[in-house]
Amino acid sequence: MTKSSVNRSSTAVLLAAGLGTRMRSSLPKALQPLAGQPMLSHLIASAAKVFDSVVVVIGPDMDDLARCAAPHATVIQHDRLGTAHAALQAEDLFGDGDVAVLYADNPLITPETLQRMLDTRRSKTERTDLALLAMRPVNPGRYGRVILNNDGTVEKIVEWADASEAERAVDLCNAGVFCADATRFREWLHKVGNANSKGEYYLTDVVGIVREEGGIIRAVEAPESELLGVNSRVELADAEATVQRRLRREAMERGVTLTAPETVFFSFDTVLEPDVVVQPNVVFGRGVTVRSGAEIKAFSHLEQCEVGPKSLVGPYARLRPGTTLGEGCHVGNFVELKATTMGNGAKANHLTYLGDASIGAATNIGAGTITCNYDGVFKHRTTIGANAFIGSDSILVAPVTIGDGALVAAGSVITSDVEPDAMAVARGVQTNKTGWAARFRAALRAKKEQG
Amino acid sequence: MTKSSVNRSSTAVLLAAGLGTRMRSSLPKALQPLAGQPMLSHLIASAAKVFDSVVVVIGPDMDDLARCAAPHATVIQHDRLGTAHAALQAEDLFGDGDVAVLYADNPLITPETLQRMLDTRRSKTERTDLALLAMRPVNPGRYGRVILNNDGTVEKIVEWADASEAERAVDLCNAGVFCADATRFREWLHKVGNANSKGEYYLTDVVGIVREEGGIIRAVEAPESELLGVNSRVELADAEATVQRRLRREAMERGVTLTAPETVFFSFDTVLEPDVVVQPNVVFGRGVTVRSGAEIKAFSHLEQCEVGPKSLVGPYARLRPGTTLGEGCHVGNFVELKATTMGNGAKANHLTYLGDASIGAATNIGAGTITCNYDGVFKHRTTIGANAFIGSDSILVAPVTIGDGALVAAGSVITSDVEPDAMAVARGVQTNKTGWAARFRAALRAKKEQG
Amino acid sequence: MTKSSVNRSSTAVLLAAGLGTRMRSSLPKALQPLAGQPMLSHLIASAAKVFDSVVVVIGPDMDDLARCAAPHATVIQHDRLGTAHAALQAEDLFGDGDVAVLYADNPLITPETLQRMLDTRRSKTERTDLALLAMRPVNPGRYGRVILNNDGTVEKIVEWADASEAERAVDLCNAGVFCADATRFREWLHKVGNANSKGEYYLTDVVGIVREEGGIIRAVEAPESELLGVNSRVELADAEATVQRRLRREAMERGVTLTAPETVFFSFDTVLEPDVVVQPNVVFGRGVTVRSGAEIKAFSHLEQCEVGPKSLVGPYARLRPGTTLGEGCHVGNFVELKATTMGNGAKANHLTYLGDASIGAATNIGAGTITCNYDGVFKHRTTIGANAFIGSDSILVAPVTIGDGALVAAGSVITSDVEPDAMAVARGVQTNKTGWAARFRAALRAKKEQG
Repeated sequence: MTKSSVNRSSTAVLLAAGLGTRMRSSLPKALQPLAGQPMLSHLIASAAKVFDSVVVVIGPDMDDLARCAAPHATVIQHDRLGTAHAALQAEDLFGDGDVAVLYADNPLITPETLQRMLDTRRSKTERTDLALLAMRPVNPGRYGRVILNNDGTVEKIVEWADASEAERAVDLCNAGVFCADATRFREWLHKVGNANSKGEYYLTDVVGIVREEGGIIRAVEAPESELLGVNSRVELADAEATVQRRLRREAMERGVTLTAPETVFFSFDTVLEPDVVVQPNVVFGRGVTVRSGAEIKAFSHLEQCEVGPKSLVGPYARLRPGTTLGEGCHVGNFVELKATTMGNGAKANHLTYLGDASIGAATNIGAGTITCNYDGVFKHRTTIGANAFIGSDSILVAPVTIGDGALVAAGSVITSDVEPDAMAVARGVQTNKTGWAARFRAALRAKKEQG
Repeated sequence: MTKSSVNRSSTAVLLAAGLGTRMRSSLPKALQPLAGQPMLSHLIASAAKVFDSVVVVIGPDMDDLARCAAPHATVIQHDRLGTAHAALQAEDLFGDGDVAVLYADNPLITPETLQRMLDTRRSKTERTDLALLAMRPVNPGRYGRVILNNDGTVEKIVEWADASEAERAVDLCNAGVFCADATRFREWLHKVGNANSKGEYYLTDVVGIVREEGGIIRAVEAPESELLGVNSRVELADAEATVQRRLRREAMERGVTLTAPETVFFSFDTVLEPDVVVQPNVVFGRGVTVRSGAEIKAFSHLEQCEVGPKSLVGPYARLRPGTTLGEGCHVGNFVELKATTMGNGAKANHLTYLGDASIGAATNIGAGTITCNYDGVFKHRTTIGANAFIGSDSILVAPVTIGDGALVAAGSVITSDVEPDAMAVARGVQTNKTGWAARFRAALRAKKEQG
Repeated sequence: MTKSSVNRSSTAVLLAAGLGTRMRSSLPKALQPLAGQPMLSHLIASAAKVFDSVVVVIGPDMDDLARCAAPHATVIQHDRLGTAHAALQAEDLFGDGDVAVLYADNPLITPETLQRMLDTRRSKTERTDLALLAMRPVNPGRYGRVILNNDGTVEKIVEWADASEAERAVDLCNAGVFCADATRFREWLHKVGNANSKGEYYLTDVVGIVREEGGIIRAVEAPESELLGVNSRVELADAEATVQRRLRREAMERGVTLTAPETVFFSFDTVLEPDVVVQPNVVFGRGVTVRSGAEIKAFSHLEQCEVGPKSLVGPYARLRPGTTLGEGCHVGNFVELKATTMGNGAKANHLTYLGDASIGAATNIGAGTITCNYDGVFKHRTTIGANAFIGSDSILVAPVTIGDGALVAAGSVITSDVEPDAMAVARGVQTNKTGWAARFRAALRAKKEQG
């Protein structure tokens, strides 16, 4: 991006005051999540790659939005009187360079598109007083149409309701995103009136004002997928699908193998190094890092954890927050780890729950092992050394420490520490009762026959 | 729907005698399921929203179909002599108003489309002797083409084999669904002959008969997705996908959040209240209700159960028939519940099997807990009071009762009742053997070297 | 296929020397897997259905590729000097009939398409000196365009860079696959020069040579989906999706029910008999056979195993290599089987790990059962007879044998053999401590208040 290559400042004003009633949700629209991050954060991230400063216009009583926008400035639109009115709330922060107006419910716009819009505005070969984004939707429906002059500049924008048949046949549609010199934009916004059926101040009216002044307007075309509005849960799901497609493609282009990309779900911040393999049906929650050469097998669910190089995770592995696997670890079928660290080469392959535990290098955790980390009020830690062997179906009642090289016999309930290289056993002694099972079955059968 | 807004009666005749040999299945075609419900039931549900009565034409020896159709009337077509012959079997039940003929292997038709067809038939401004459904498929293939007159009424239907090149270029296709006055429809059906290569009586021939009488026929267009026939397992899977898309969209429009709708599978009767959140990869079997504010996390599978408000289910939770969760329950990773009731705020978070159990409010079930509800012949109940704490990896051998506020020590096998506020323990005592593990490993290594 | 119906021999030369640097992988491109099998193996399988012999051209130091190609012959292209040069390396193996040149990174081509190309070449009614494959991609982009004469034969192939606007408007594109008489093809290849910017010998130049000789070239059109190249991980994922779609469709056409085909992942060698039902979200690794009437429920993962007729597997069942289920077995929720045989009617329904075990017919394995098959160095076997009943949460420490009809009490650690019809128990005795839990909670609460 050319952010710092010019002396003129650039500012993006993000309109985010919408309540999103069509979402049927108590969350403000701009905070609805995409890939685990508010829509507003996606848009801020894109805008901040291109513009020197970002200002967010929010409604009253939207402190959560202001926190989300920080450290970027927010201004409050106290009355919702239309998009031009919203943009004007930020006029003191327009700066003296160029300013663009974007929408929090258009979060999929890319930095590349924003850059093209800004470059068009600033072009020294072709004068552009106002640059706007346009798209050619598969179904143009009731979008306002962008009518061009013969020289390719914009003649006007016609709202669908006012458009002639010929104008409706035009498929170039207005996305509502504008970019212009800050000083002039401020003047235009002040000229916008509200003599319309809703009594609102519409940003689109700027187009007519610029044309009256003899200004030149150019449309910058962008793919429909970047500009679709997100106003309902169906549109939110569509936007999520777009974000997921981008994240999957970026991962593959960085050298990650996804055998069935359409079944892998990322968070905005998922880090997969090259040569990671991800099988079908994997869900990455926030804050996951997977190192090179690791493989995440089918039906795994990872969240706020780090998987070391060449580790094998899953199928059916559940890594919860605070989990760190070293190099070459194995975490297998129906195993859940929470706030647990595993040293290099440690293994927990079957039906295990490890919570608040440290496992030393090369230690083997048998099938069915469970840490009792919770006494109903407090959580306690389990510490296991290196090269230890925890027999299957053992119960480790925390707080408890098991030394390097120690062995726990299968089926033991461990309540006291085990010293290094010792063996601990805590279980009943086996008794066999000859013929008992045959008699028991006969009795059950008799009971069943009696009804 | 305007069902009761007119005095004329309306009857839908559903042709369901098809065996569906292309399905390669022993199940009659009309009983093949979509979203867990027979295709016939889907069509009956749609038809019953629009028509006063529904009659189903079945083949001989199809008692399962008659049961599925009940309480709607069924008539038997003893010989399969074509669609007109099938429709005629129901002539005594046509009533004296309007009658429409539908097909069990076109189960995706919506009430809205049926209503439009009936309204067209009954229009007082435009005479319509016969209304028929037509579609414009992406690939019209070998469908019969609907040829229109200049005034937009139907001139004729041409079968693909008989069509000229110009007629084949028409993309309006006949879906075979007709609606007319009952008395006249009966007369037309009796006039249909079988002088064709297969010797069958075709419903489509009614069109020619109506035109010879000077009748006016109008085509009502409907989306291809509603009218595609289901004759093979591939088409059944396509129809299932259509039904799932509709169910997902309806859920989102009612205020449910689906982050990855394409990975969530519904039953026809799934009830998700507004503000329910469903993560990716969730399967709803029949009879599931989820109350407002509950969240169903990834990889969960629910069937005939109710999830109370604000409960958290999954990931990897398996709720089987007869399970009821109160408000604010947690059922977590690798937990299976069958015929189990959990009081408000009760939790079972890891690797647990609870069958035929009642769990009191605010009780915590530790990781790895298992109810032994089956003795090989009988099933027995486990009853746990409120505010109890079941330690990890406990085994509850039913029938057994654990009182309010009781505590079971981790790893215990509980075979007798535990009184309220008591603590029960049933496990071996821990012994540590110094150096044993080191000696054991040395012995194993020696054995390995010996080969 | 007509492979043996003619006397002329036919040879397919497969160019597989590519390194696939755009894959960002250490694996040679031709070994990248699709449905669990190298791309090269897919192409060999298709080619071998149509051609008498198959020759694979590999690069130096590609022994893995040679092993993959065996028993088919391989020749080494020591210097990568272009596709014509690569094909020439195999000239001694062209035979004296017809020869075709294919590409390992076009692995989706079907036998039907190859057969059509060979039939075109050999047609006795229309002379064809060179047959080539062409496609009409949705986005023709920078493919070379196939320019036809008025009689439908090929006039020339124009590379995109050299094409006029009119030529670029042609959507018939060259797929690079050629078929001709072996002797003449050899001659043409020797005539190809390298006077181009990269100094390479291009196979496409054969087209000009044939035309100069007055030869007749015909284009055989094939769907884009068969001919798309696989050069990046994104394209590999797209190819995988195509292969999966084919495998799903074939399964359904053979009488398998897939309720959500798009969520079921096959291996190239998955065998599902008719009347198998597969629920959503199932992953088949290599080497799986499922017999008629079995049902594989949601979220199951199978690999190198056989499922007997009418068995029920899943949901959440993990069958690992070496597992064999008899008729009417049940393997249920969160159950993992490895190298385990289950007799007819045996059941393991919940939270169980069975490794290196034999389970007799009609035996019931209780919830939470675990075999301890690993002592840290060696694996040991567990043998359970028929009609046995293993109580929940039992631990079977291998090597151990449990007789027919024996019963193991819930929660037992079994270290010694159990004779037939006997009952074995190995667990602690229950003690209840009145009021203990209430006192414990009070103490915890006090501790919490102290902070």
